[in-house]
Amino acid sequence: MSTVDLRLDARWVIPIVPEGALEHHSVLIEGGRIAAVMPTLHADGIEAREHISLPSHALLPGLVNAHTHGAMTLLRGIADDIPLKPWLEDHIWPREARFLAPDFVHDGSLLAAAEMIRGGVTCCNDMYFFPDAAARAYSESGMRAMLALPVVDFPTPYAADADGCLQAGLAARDLWKHEPRLAFSLAPHAPYTVGDASWSKVVVYARQLELPIQTHLLEAPDERAQSVARYGIGPLQRLHALGATGPGFIAIHAIHIDQADIDLLATHACHVVHCPTSNLKLANGIAPVTALQARSVSIALGSDGAASNNRLDVFGEARLASLLAKTATGDAGALPAPSVLRMATLNGAAALGLEREIGSLERGKQADLIAVDLGGWQHAPCYDVVSHLIYVIGRDQVCDVWVRGERVLDSGELTRLNAHDLLARARFWQERLERQP
Amino acid sequence: MSTVDLRLDARWVIPIVPEGALEHHSVLIEGGRIAAVMPTLHADGIEAREHISLPSHALLPGLVNAHTHGAMTLLRGIADDIPLKPWLEDHIWPREARFLAPDFVHDGSLLAAAEMIRGGVTCCNDMYFFPDAAARAYSESGMRAMLALPVVDFPTPYAADADGCLQAGLAARDLWKHEPRLAFSLAPHAPYTVGDASWSKVVVYARQLELPIQTHLLEAPDERAQSVARYGIGPLQRLHALGATGPGFIAIHAIHIDQADIDLLATHACHVVHCPTSNLKLANGIAPVTALQARSVSIALGSDGAASNNRLDVFGEARLASLLAKTATGDAGALPAPSVLRMATLNGAAALGLEREIGSLERGKQADLIAVDLGGWQHAPCYDVVSHLIYVIGRDQVCDVWVRGERVLDSGELTRLNAHDLLARARFWQERLERQP
Repeated sequence: MSTVDLRLDARWVIPIVPEGALEHHSVLIEGGRIAAVMPTLHADGIEAREHISLPSHALLPGLVNAHTHGAMTLLRGIADDIPLKPWLEDHIWPREARFLAPDFVHDGSLLAAAEMIRGGVTCCNDMYFFPDAAARAYSESGMRAMLALPVVDFPTPYAADADGCLQAGLAARDLWKHEPRLAFSLAPHAPYTVGDASWSKVVVYARQLELPIQTHLLEAPDERAQSVARYGIGPLQRLHALGATGPGFIAIHAIHIDQADIDLLATHACHVVHCPTSNLKLANGIAPVTALQARSVSIALGSDGAASNNRLDVFGEARLASLLAKTATGDAGALPAPSVLRMATLNGAAALGLEREIGSLERGKQADLIAVDLGGWQHAPCYDVVSHLIYVIGRDQVCDVWVRGERVLDSGELTRLNAHDLLARARFWQERLERQP
Repeated sequence: MSTVDLRLDARWVIPIVPEGALEHHSVLIEGGRIAAVMPTLHADGIEAREHISLPSHALLPGLVNAHTHGAMTLLRGIADDIPLKPWLEDHIWPREARFLAPDFVHDGSLLAAAEMIRGGVTCCNDMYFFPDAAARAYSESGMRAMLALPVVDFPTPYAADADGCLQAGLAARDLWKHEPRLAFSLAPHAPYTVGDASWSKVVVYARQLELPIQTHLLEAPDERAQSVARYGIGPLQRLHALGATGPGFIAIHAIHIDQADIDLLATHACHVVHCPTSNLKLANGIAPVTALQARSVSIALGSDGAASNNRLDVFGEARLASLLAKTATGDAGALPAPSVLRMATLNGAAALGLEREIGSLERGKQADLIAVDLGGWQHAPCYDVVSHLIYVIGRDQVCDVWVRGERVLDSGELTRLNAHDLLARARFWQERLERQP
């Protein structure tokens, strides 16, 4: 290692593994991967084609947004402060029925990608319709994404039924599966919107193609009773009986889980995605994160879509996850800053099955990194940089972002996407959407 | 009104009274007060010595931070994720015992003022020791502040006992009472730290001098039982019996209040300050905001001190207040965006007894205003600007701030305070504080 592509010297490097901050360390990048993390003093002999000094910055792995509906940026704020049922039935679904199409998904996903990159998110798990159009947007943006191949039994502008969904989704995957920044999963929307026959097909495809399965699980309080009434068992037990559970199973929300659910998730090494803001905003409740943690279930963080949050802000989710866990348990020591930062990075990578590639700054991993500027008087004094990242800074302090070693945010400016173009696309859709319904 | 000092033309003016947003409106300012709010089309005939166009901005009253301990910015993040008792006894109090002095309070309050101005807060209610030093800092910063004259029975570096506290506090008030941006209140720390004799003196002074009384009320779960054991009644009933309640009484936190407390607060037109982040972070719980609202108790918002939050961010508190109320009640319509924005502005003013001077953009009121830039692609589309202010933007989008018509933040830069000086002060104290305890 006499010459590397890029050398980043930072005031603090927070590798996640091991936990804690390394002061005055450097990260060396070669061929889009991390070649070494070392004290800056030791890096001085190494030649680098590009050398960037981050003298008041924390350098850490890019955040992983483990659950979002990217294209719903176009519906951001269109119907706030409205309970779930009228929100869906009177505001969201009528507009989706009218506007859902590849261009809508492309433009909304592009806005989502831009927002996430700007806020330090280098990888997201995007669940929406027309994954081909979303793949095109993420590919343009330079960020990493796992695209869900959505499955619902009822007809949508995307497909007539579950089989149609699977066909369209698998075709999108065939088109994009060689793009190194993209990955795919199967996403039956929820236990209550997808019947046993469709779930069984999903399980077969997931095994054949080695794809994760993700679903909205027990988000609303009444989902368990509905499942028991219809199927005789709770939703998670039903999915388990259908063969869906395992290390490739991602339970999103998981608010109204009981101890038996927690045991099942733990026993089968399933992943949970905690979406604290969306769960509060739609009045669904607080997921039992510390109970899951006590059983060593890996918990990642998600923003959910912009229509129910309304920010795709993983720093914000990490902060809120920590705050809520403290009051939910009565223990101010619950979910301390290092734990939620791990949830926002390495656990997110693990949920997506990408923990060998991203989520920490370790030799050989992909160079997905972000720099956060802590040099301002607003952030001084700073006694503990990890604590500052969770409780003090906001996503606006992210200044630089690299994905696979490519700088996609440079001093706060997107390098691949154009601000005027993004604004024009948003305005185009706003004019149409506010006329409806 | 042929000539005014300042004319601000904004894409949206949000006056709070009436509720909602006025599109393409102007605010005219003369002699530090609001001369008119009118459609920009009608303002074109009016000459202004200064004319500022805010073409993609929302213009609204400055936010009111109705509870903070300004100087604790110097302790920001020094002891996170630690339960209340060891947090106070092992981390906060030993450092306060060692360092509490006028210079510490001045420098910490200056950092607090800078942070609040930068984040759109034009008025705060600051409760800490050495209010004279804090008054000096707020006066330098240009922001408006109500300074608490703190009272505790036990000895501190500030005073030997409650009488000493009152003497020092009233002397500080005498020095600063003619400064138009400053106001004063009496602040017995809490029912459990101040005995009946001292409370009675506070009540006498409050009546004589027409000062509000504020106190930390039922912040921790065990305060009621302790009060009953010691005094035979709950803490609020005790303060009521001592004559403290009334429209000038500000109950801070008010988490563990019961229905009788709510009735008493409502009957006597008391004010409540809700501090959602601090309440979560110290694992104290969620205040029953909607139950208070149902009885028409006026609720303001506070950040609490930077050691238990760790941001003095009223936009963040407004957002969190809304989110928590939704899940606490199971109603996604609880505390909608316009309600929490009112809490963050006019209700804050009312808590401080300043509702005739600040808190809304109405003719004759002080020109305390902030501009928030919503022009970025990050905030597009924007269907409802009030909803965007609560759920989408963050304090970093505040770009301009006026207090009494004076611009104290100009395109994101403080006009009165120097960034290098602020950073130097923060570093000076950090070096000393991290050596202790």
